[in-house]
Order: sequence, then structure tokens, then C-alpha cells
Amino acid sequence: MSERIPVGVLGATGMVGQEFVSFLENHPWFDLTFLGASDRSAGKAYREATTWRLGGETPVYVRDIIVSDSVPKGGPTLMFSAMDASVATEIERAFAAAGHTIVSNSRNHRMETDVPLLVPEANSQHLELLQAQQRLRGWNGRIVTNPNCSTIVLVMALAPLKQFGIKNVIVTTMQAISGAGYPGVASLDIVGNVVPFIGGEEPKMESETQKILGDFAGDRIEPLAAKVSAQCNRVPVVDGHTICVSAQFEKKVSEDELIEAWRSFRGAPQLKNLPSAPAQPVIYMDQTDRPQPRRDVERENGMAVFTGRLRKCPVLDYKFVALGHNTVRGAAGAAVLNAELMKAQGLL
Amino acid sequence: MSERIPVGVLGATGMVGQEFVSFLENHPWFDLTFLGASDRSAGKAYREATTWRLGGETPVYVRDIIVSDSVPKGGPTLMFSAMDASVATEIERAFAAAGHTIVSNSRNHRMETDVPLLVPEANSQHLELLQAQQRLRGWNGRIVTNPNCSTIVLVMALAPLKQFGIKNVIVTTMQAISGAGYPGVASLDIVGNVVPFIGGEEPKMESETQKILGDFAGDRIEPLAAKVSAQCNRVPVVDGHTICVSAQFEKKVSEDELIEAWRSFRGAPQLKNLPSAPAQPVIYMDQTDRPQPRRDVERENGMAVFTGRLRKCPVLDYKFVALGHNTVRGAAGAAVLNAELMKAQGLL
Amino acid sequence: MSERIPVGVLGATGMVGQEFVSFLENHPWFDLTFLGASDRSAGKAYREATTWRLGGETPVYVRDIIVSDSVPKGGPTLMFSAMDASVATEIERAFAAAGHTIVSNSRNHRMETDVPLLVPEANSQHLELLQAQQRLRGWNGRIVTNPNCSTIVLVMALAPLKQFGIKNVIVTTMQAISGAGYPGVASLDIVGNVVPFIGGEEPKMESETQKILGDFAGDRIEPLAAKVSAQCNRVPVVDGHTICVSAQFEKKVSEDELIEAWRSFRGAPQLKNLPSAPAQPVIYMDQTDRPQPRRDVERENGMAVFTGRLRKCPVLDYKFVALGHNTVRGAAGAAVLNAELMKAQGLL
Amino acid sequence: MSERIPVGVLGATGMVGQEFVSFLENHPWFDLTFLGASDRSAGKAYREATTWRLGGETPVYVRDIIVSDSVPKGGPTLMFSAMDASVATEIERAFAAAGHTIVSNSRNHRMETDVPLLVPEANSQHLELLQAQQRLRGWNGRIVTNPNCSTIVLVMALAPLKQFGIKNVIVTTMQAISGAGYPGVASLDIVGNVVPFIGGEEPKMESETQKILGDFAGDRIEPLAAKVSAQCNRVPVVDGHTICVSAQFEKKVSEDELIEAWRSFRGAPQLKNLPSAPAQPVIYMDQTDRPQPRRDVERENGMAVFTGRLRKCPVLDYKFVALGHNTVRGAAGAAVLNAELMKAQGLL
Repeated sequence: MSERIPVGVLGATGMVGQEFVSFLENHPWFDLTFLGASDRSAGKAYREATTWRLGGETPVYVRDIIVSDSVPKGGPTLMFSAMDASVATEIERAFAAAGHTIVSNSRNHRMETDVPLLVPEANSQHLELLQAQQRLRGWNGRIVTNPNCSTIVLVMALAPLKQFGIKNVIVTTMQAISGAGYPGVASLDIVGNVVPFIGGEEPKMESETQKILGDFAGDRIEPLAAKVSAQCNRVPVVDGHTICVSAQFEKKVSEDELIEAWRSFRGAPQLKNLPSAPAQPVIYMDQTDRPQPRRDVERENGMAVFTGRLRKCPVLDYKFVALGHNTVRGAAGAAVLNAELMKAQGLL
Repeated sequence: MSERIPVGVLGATGMVGQEFVSFLENHPWFDLTFLGASDRSAGKAYREATTWRLGGETPVYVRDIIVSDSVPKGGPTLMFSAMDASVATEIERAFAAAGHTIVSNSRNHRMETDVPLLVPEANSQHLELLQAQQRLRGWNGRIVTNPNCSTIVLVMALAPLKQFGIKNVIVTTMQAISGAGYPGVASLDIVGNVVPFIGGEEPKMESETQKILGDFAGDRIEPLAAKVSAQCNRVPVVDGHTICVSAQFEKKVSEDELIEAWRSFRGAPQLKNLPSAPAQPVIYMDQTDRPQPRRDVERENGMAVFTGRLRKCPVLDYKFVALGHNTVRGAAGAAVLNAELMKAQGLL
Repeated sequence: MSERIPVGVLGATGMVGQEFVSFLENHPWFDLTFLGASDRSAGKAYREATTWRLGGETPVYVRDIIVSDSVPKGGPTLMFSAMDASVATEIERAFAAAGHTIVSNSRNHRMETDVPLLVPEANSQHLELLQAQQRLRGWNGRIVTNPNCSTIVLVMALAPLKQFGIKNVIVTTMQAISGAGYPGVASLDIVGNVVPFIGGEEPKMESETQKILGDFAGDRIEPLAAKVSAQCNRVPVVDGHTICVSAQFEKKVSEDELIEAWRSFRGAPQLKNLPSAPAQPVIYMDQTDRPQPRRDVERENGMAVFTGRLRKCPVLDYKFVALGHNTVRGAAGAAVLNAELMKAQGLL
Repeated sequence: MSERIPVGVLGATGMVGQEFVSFLENHPWFDLTFLGASDRSAGKAYREATTWRLGGETPVYVRDIIVSDSVPKGGPTLMFSAMDASVATEIERAFAAAGHTIVSNSRNHRMETDVPLLVPEANSQHLELLQAQQRLRGWNGRIVTNPNCSTIVLVMALAPLKQFGIKNVIVTTMQAISGAGYPGVASLDIVGNVVPFIGGEEPKMESETQKILGDFAGDRIEPLAAKVSAQCNRVPVVDGHTICVSAQFEKKVSEDELIEAWRSFRGAPQLKNLPSAPAQPVIYMDQTDRPQPRRDVERENGMAVFTGRLRKCPVLDYKFVALGHNTVRGAAGAAVLNAELMKAQGLL
């Protein structure tokens, strides 16, 4: 690829925006040249408009870029959206209407009928929804979304098992504080504590999973018929959502077959050798006490999902543990992988 | 009650032993006068034999008691056992054979056919097993046990619901580090981390729950026919096991009926007004994000179990959260309440 | 004391306000009947105006009190102030002018020349400043303040040593998150981290210490001539500020004399047997690794300060560790003790 | 450099040994081919002899190496020592006597008169002690050591300031749990807590600093005449020791001169372009609340030390904060850098 594609990030000064900035540094295909934010930040250099909350300091390659406001008037065609849900609906639509391709991490459009909720390893064919989207909305541009940061862990663990007929899923999450942005969770709420509630998270996990694992049906997705039940908790972990899953299948399946299904699973990102694709998207660990967020979340550049502890469930068929990086595979990295897939499919 | 009953603690220098010492301070019925430990500690004053790991300093009332070895030769009839599982089997049996009443927190005898696994609010009638126990073993004494610290939270939450016919239960735990004793969990394993495995815990939760909620049947307990599936995790919380439960019932039951069942639940400890009994053993909290270990675990002297977030489960019938104090209601406090019940029933 | 004195709390819905509510429950002298807050809360029942952040639930005794706005128009003469610094200056003055006795935890008036910065064990004679205050300001009422939550730990540890001529003090703090209120410190800033900066804290520790340990001089305080240097850090501890101190004295003094000075120290609260006074205000611990916040902070109802690890300092004379409860002895409890002293001295 | 030098690690299965294994992966000069451990592990493949405690899994490049016992009989000339202090003295001496170059992280030989306590940026000339060492001990081999993990942070921060005449230093540390190895600090001791004591740490910081910053004087080091006073604390941080320093200098020096001294500081590793050398060994951060362990410790591959918050100290001259990676710059990375310096100076 001789020339890098200019890209922008909308909502660039927030926590998720910073994660995009961090993830896109040295990207082989995408050249981050546009940083959009609110009017309050527009006109300032990025380093001045932003209090950098991630490790180290504001990356040099964006320090001096002047932040733009979030109105479509030029800028790169490809825009990642890291905007807060309170503003994302209107701005994303305005940019799409103006011909931009919005690859969004915001939740606003995920469940709309004609918007792909894309996990490239699981449902790359959902990109075909874009034809209906453009036709129905009269847009030159389009909107593609990635799932919620807890959904992605479940979906990546379930996608290789879809072949066995997923029937019932009960999942309990133990989610990292970085999933709530900044300032996000107050330390007085979480140090030495568990908070057994995350606003809106459980319905999202339940419905997004059904859509992602559903089938493309012309101008909409036929959701997976499985029932999904989620209980979501916040725990004092910095990065990495750990989930405990019990699942029931239509077909009779052995432990070895499940493990083999995870280990041999490859999707579009692996087949097309996308730059951010993990070589093996789901890694089953044999150790009795793994995966663990602090020890495993940074592996594979944060883009793989780890499973472990597969064993019989006395109520459903099997139970197991899964782990994924909520701000990488569950946010910025997910969106970038989505854009890479679109590029590889000639959609950019 | 005009005179306090002398009692002893076996395994008094360990972490659980310290919890007994702490819980029994100023007890209205029991007077802790005997502290048993290994030969290494025997002969020393308790304050010298023990590195006090709980808050504050070694309680004054036991500081100067000379630690005894753990061989039955006199001492109080009532002995609480806080012994490590590696030694508890033989020593508990020796004391029972010598006529002592062993009220044990150790796991060793819990699942033996003729040993009550007692939760006074749930199965006080299981004490009748002691007749079979004494007859079969030829003991003058006896052994009574309390459940594992994660089991108790589940059982207390389920006991009021037994009337609706418990059919299937899936539970995921988030357990405090104090559940592992001292030194227990290495800080490098748990600071900022989740460990999705606790050795032996899941089978214990599954089988103990069935026994506790089962029915007395002469010389044994007919276990509850429900299926129970547990996933157990360690989280960086000091005290308090939080559990997420999905449950299915034989009978049709409404949310209001479940909440009312919890709120109105009273057992033998409440009816007999036992000194360590919580006034209301299961407290349902209406707030959307409670119970929480750091904010709720110390309430009611650590002896109540808190439930919350009752809602429909798309797979089973209902899901909810529960919380209990693992070292109080799940260990020392449980054993003391067991002894109080025995006293109230004329068994001491 | 036959009748309890009605008291109020200004800023009652905030975190510090909740600590007053919690501390004043069942107070033998003071009857909390007035809860003041912003216009937004005024007119609502306290339980509706407040999200209770401390353990358990909103105390029953205040649940149904209707919150008042913060304008002086009746209400109890004695008002505790838990107001945020952004509004405390004007409101406290208005209440004092209207004849109220303001016993304030806010920082706003602490360093004003005619305002006592009171630590009853250390400087009860500073209450005499109130004569100048009323004369100079023309108030019927008055304002008394307590120190910052880190200052109090240092001052309580130094007060018994003042007799040896304090010359130089270097102190490094490790402060709990509860010191920052709610939402206060973001969890992403402090979980698994140290933040080596607390805005405004170091100058406060340095100057407040000099004022508190200074001498009453008619209409002002002659500050202690010692130099004080502070470095303040936030650590992931819930309650309890731990400080490491190096100190140099005018007089030659032995370790034994210093320890004896701490242990024998008694001040006005002990002599007058004030209800919230700890029996021994400074407790020296002999263990090599104590005091520790999680294990010691709740002792003595949170009202004592603990010292430990006294040893020679190669640069100054001695070094040691101290610990105090920042929201009790460092906030609500400090103010209540101040009011108790005033009552005992006939000033209420 | 056409060929990589074979090297070994003694104590390879422990926590520090694992850090060497991790740090040496893909090292351009050194080829780790020998893994020594206790007799219990000898003869097993490394992956079987070791429970890998760091992130991810046992690195592939060492998984199948058969662990050797710790007796000198061949093996690489260059041996890194990660041995526990309880065994290091004899084994290190035996290997040195047998002609090996021991580059040790163990504390055992650090303070011996003829053993370099090496920090390449600060005292590369101390390597000249090796002549005396070999002469006096009659060894063909030799022992070189690196400092304690808390000392290194202080020494790196002070080395650039030595030119101003360091006179007095008071330092308080907040040290990470990884500094105590595995299992190391019990979680019950440190979750939500501060432990104001680390056995032996304070004397080490005080005396090692004087030796490292001292001057080579033929067959010994003339220690720096400065007085150093340390207070050492454990805090719930995974990696990274944060220290608060007050320092007094012989010469009058401005803040700008101190910052410039840090920023322009370069030592032998930078001049010789050693592979593990940080480009800038001491990085002064301008932000008001930095450095912070979780956000800064992984920068520069863990090999730089970060300083910040320089300001006047009312008692000594200046105070500031410093941070370093205790298991990298304070252990494995320090030893490897020492060996790189020796190689570059023709000593290997």
C-alpha cells in the first residue's frame, strides 16, 4: 500500500478519543490528520485541548494538530467516532449525510436496523447492510458501528461456537474501570469494592449479541434466536473485562470440540491479513486460573480474546471464562479493525 | 442466663481462630477460656503465639491465656474448630470421641452423611442427625459444621425461596481475599486483578447447597433436587462475597412475592432470639446498585445477607445479587450461631 | 446534662455533611434537627435530597427532616459547616453575623487572624480569640474552625512534643481517597497508582501547623517558629492518612522521652471528659509495621492519632510514622469535639 | 557485533529470574542459554520447573531449556544472579572462583569493600574495583552488583545533582508490591492499606546511596559524605517505586539549574550507546501531578527514572518526586545494563 489514507477522529479529546490517537500511532494504512472536538476545544493545539489520561505523554505526532469543530466541512472521508452518546446521533448523521464514512464506537446507531454492528471475525457479511442504509437514508456516506466493550468479549467467545447452535447463554461480567471513561467511576465507589450495576449495560449485552451473531437478510439482520441473560458488575481492575459464561447448545458437543473450535477459529481479518488483526482471535488457555485481566489483557496488542476453564455446567451444557481488552478490542481497536476490513473490501 | 458457658477454640492462632476470638469478645452466653493450637504454640501466652492480623491489637481478654495443645484432656465441653483442613479430621474426631461438642468451621466433616451442615435459619431440624451420628460413631460428643463462606451467601438467599420449588441455580461469585486466610492470596495475584478460580470452591458451593436445603430423613439428609452451577472468582475486596444468581422455580412466582419472601423470612435464630441472630436475616435493598461489599458488609454485625437487583432472567426465571460477610456469617459468626441454637434447644 | 442542644449542619447533603450526620447520630449533647443545603435541595426530605455514600443507608433519624436553604433565618444557634469552599465564606459570615456559632470544617476562615483554628488537645486557649473576633467583626455569633485532614494528624503527633522545642519538620503524606470528597478522585487516577500531588494541601499543612501550635497573643496567634515542609500524596486507601515525619528539636531528647510524651499526653477534651474525646489522644504502637490505615483507623471511634516506628533520623533528630482518620478526626469528629469543648467552657 | 554472547541466569525460576528471562528475550548481545536453579528444579524443562508469574505465558525461547543445578561446572562465563539472599553468598562466590563473571541482583555482596555496586550512569569508574577484587580474593572471575530497587530511584535522581554538593537527603518511599517477589506481600496486608515498614530497606537505601555516589579510591570506594535518611512504605501499586525527596546542597543552585542538570545528564550507557540504555536516563516532567507509577513506569522500556514537582523545601533546599521501575531498572534491567557496560569496556 503505497499511500496512507488520511483519517479523522471525532471526539478526539475525550478518553476514547485518546485511545484512538494511541492506537492509530504508526498505523500502516491510516494517517490521523484530523481531530474533531467540541467548540470549546476547536482552534487549540491538541496538546492544549487535551489532558492526556493514558500512560506517558500526548503522542508527539498529534501534539500540534489544531483541533477542529465537529461540523462536516471537508476533512478526511474516513472519520472514527469517539463521541459521547449525548451528542453522537446528530453529528454522526450529519457527517454521513455529507459523504463521510463514520466508523463509530458510540452506542447511538448500533441497534438501528440498517446499521452494521460489525465484528469482522464474526459477521463481515453484515457490511452488505450499507447498501440498504445508503438507499434508505439517501446518504453518500455511511455509518458502521462496533459493539459495547462487554459485548465484544462475549461475542468473540461465542462466534466460534455458533456452529453448534447457541441456545441459551447466561453471563456475569467483572468489568474494568476504564470502561466508564474519565472521570467515570469515582474511586470511593470502587476501591476495595464491587458495584453490581452498570447503567444500560445488561440490555446492550443481550441485544447486541443477538444482532451480531444474527444473519444478514437483505435490508436487516435476522437476530440469533438464542436467549442471553447478563449480569454486569464493576470491579477494581484498570483494563480488561472478565466474563463467566454458561451456555447451552442445540447440538451435542464435547469439550475438545469446543476448544478446537476456539483455537482453529479464523475470520475475515485473519484471511485478509489486516494490520490490526490478531493472528489467532480467540486463545484458549489451559492453566487452571487463567485468563486474568492484569496478566493477559495486554497480549496480542489487546486484540485477541482469551478463554479458559471450560467445564460442564450442571444446569446448561458448559461453562467457561473469557477476557478481552475493553478499550482496545472493545473500543478503538475494534473500530480501526472495522475500517481495515472496509478498506480491504474496497469500501473506502 | 445466669452463668456463661466456658468454650474453647481449636486452631485459635490462625486467621479463622482470630475471627472467633474477635467475635466471642463480650458474648453474653459463651466465655472463651480455652485456646488450642499446634504444639509449636502450646505453652505460650496467646499474645506471643499469635501475630494478630485483624484490626487493632490482640483483644485484652485473651492476651494472657496460655495456649493449649490440641489433644482432648479436659477443657470446655464446647469447642469451636477453626483448624486448617489438613489437621481437622483427626483432631475433631478425637475431641468428639472424648465427649466434646465440636462446632466446626472446617470443611472436613461437612459432607459426611451423619454430620449436620447447619444454617440455623434454613435447616435447624438437621440437628436431629446428631442422634444417628452418636449412635453410629459411638461418640459421647458430636460434630456440627457450618458451610463454606461462599455457600452461606447463596443458601441464605435461597432458603426463603425454597417454598417456590428451586429447580435450577447458576451462580457466579466475586469473593473477598479474607476468604483465603493468611497469607492466603498473594498481592501480586490480586491487586488490580481478578482470579477466575478458587481451588475446590465450586464443587463445595454446589453440593453443600443441596445438602443444606435438603430434608432430614432419619439418619441422613435427602438433598434438594435442584441443580446448582457455580463459577467462583477472587476479586480485590477485603471482606464480603458478592454473588450473581439466576434461578428457576417450579412454581410461578412474581417479583413482589420473592421480595416479600426475603423480607418476611425468619428462622429459628429469630424465633428463639439468639444473641448473634440478625433481626432480619435477609435484607432486600431497593437501590439500583446495591448491595456492595464495602458499603454493606459490616451492617447487622456482619450476620445478615443482603439481596438486591431482582429482575427477570431471559434464560431462567429471575436473577439477583446477594452479599454476605465471609468471615463473620461465613465462618466464626456462623459457628457461634450454630452453638447458640444448640444451647437454645437444650443440646449443650 | 438534662437537655440536648439543637444543632444544624450546613452543607448537609455533601460527603462531609453526611459524615456529620453519621457522627452526630446518638450524640449525648447535640440533637441534629436542622439540615441546610443549596436551594436545589431545600424543601425536600433529606433522604430524597441526598445520595447516601457512606456505609449502609441514610440514618433513620434524619431521613424525613426537610432540608432548609442556607440563609440565616432561625434554626439552631449552633451550626456545623460542611460547606464546599466555593460557597462557605459568605454563608458562614452571614450566619455568624446573624448570631450563630459556626463550627466549621471548611478551609475558608482557618487562616484568618481572628479565627481560632482549634484542636482541643493542643490549643484550647485559642478560643480566647473569639473575643477579638466578635469585637472586630461586630458579630453576635462567631466562627471556629478545625484544621485540614492531613494537618490534624501531624499536629496531634507534634503537640505532645512541643515541650522539646520543635525546630524543623519534614513530612510526607499518603492520603486516603475519602479526603477528596465525592466524586473526588477518579478511579482511573488512583487504582494501582500513587498521585504525588494534592492541590493546595502542602501550603495548608505547613501554615496551619504553625498557627495551631502557636501561642495566643491577645487578638492574634503568634505562629510556632518551626519550619515545616510537606509533600502530599494520594494513595488507594479508603480512610486514614498515613504520614512519615522527620523532626528536629531545640532540646536534647531521648526516644523514651518522646514515647512517654505521646503516651502521657492529655488535653482539655480528656480533662473535661468530652463525649467524643478519645481516652488517650495519641497512641504509640510498638509493632514494627504499625500503624496501618486499614487495621488501625477505626479504633477509638476514629478520634485518636496513632504513632509508631520512632527511630533516629540521620539528618534531623528523629523520624516516625503517624496515622489518623481523615473524615472523623480530620473533619466531622474534629468539629464536633470543638463544639463540645465550647459547650464545656460555657461558650454555647 | 557479529555473535551473541551466551549467558546464564542463576535463580532462574524465581520471580527475579523470570524478570531476567523476560528482559533478555531478543537481546541483541546476550543469548540466554543457561538457566540455573535449585536441585528441586534441575533436570526439568524450564516451563515445568516454573510457575510463570509475569504477564502472558513462559516465553517460547526458554520453555524447553533444561534447568541446571547451581554448581559451577561449565556453562556460560557470564552469569546473572537472581538468587535469593539466603543462598546467594556461597553460590556466587563459587562461580566467581571458578572463573565466571557474576552480575548479581542479590544484596549479599553489595556492600563488600571490593565489590562494585554499579549504576552505569553514575559510577562506571567503580568497575576498576574489580582489579582489587580479583587480586584480594584470588578469583579468575568476579562479582558485580546492582543496588536495591528503591536505592536505584534515589541514586539516579541524585547522580546528576552530585555536582552541586549533596549534603543532606531525606527520602520517603511508596514502594510497589512487585519489589517483594512472590508470594511476597500478602494481599490482606496491602489491599486498601499502607504498610509503613519494609524489612532492611531503610539501611540499604542509606548506605548503598553513599557507596554508589562515592569515589573510587584504589581498592575501595570512599563513600559520599552526605547524610541520607529513608522511610520506606509499601503501597498497593503493582510496579514502580515512587519517592519523595528533600535535599540540601553545598552550593547555591536554582530550580532551573537542577532541572537542566537532570535533563542534560548522560552517562556511560548513553555515550557508549548500550542496547538497554535509555536515551535520557532522567526525565523531568513538567505536569503538576507527575510522575505516577501506573502512567509512567513502563515508558522508556522501564529503564529511565522520572522526576517531577521540583520546588523549594522550607527545611532543606529543595524537594521533588522521583519514580523508577523496580523490577526493570531496579533489578533485571539494571544487571543487564551492568553487563552491557562491562562488555563495552572489554571486560567480558
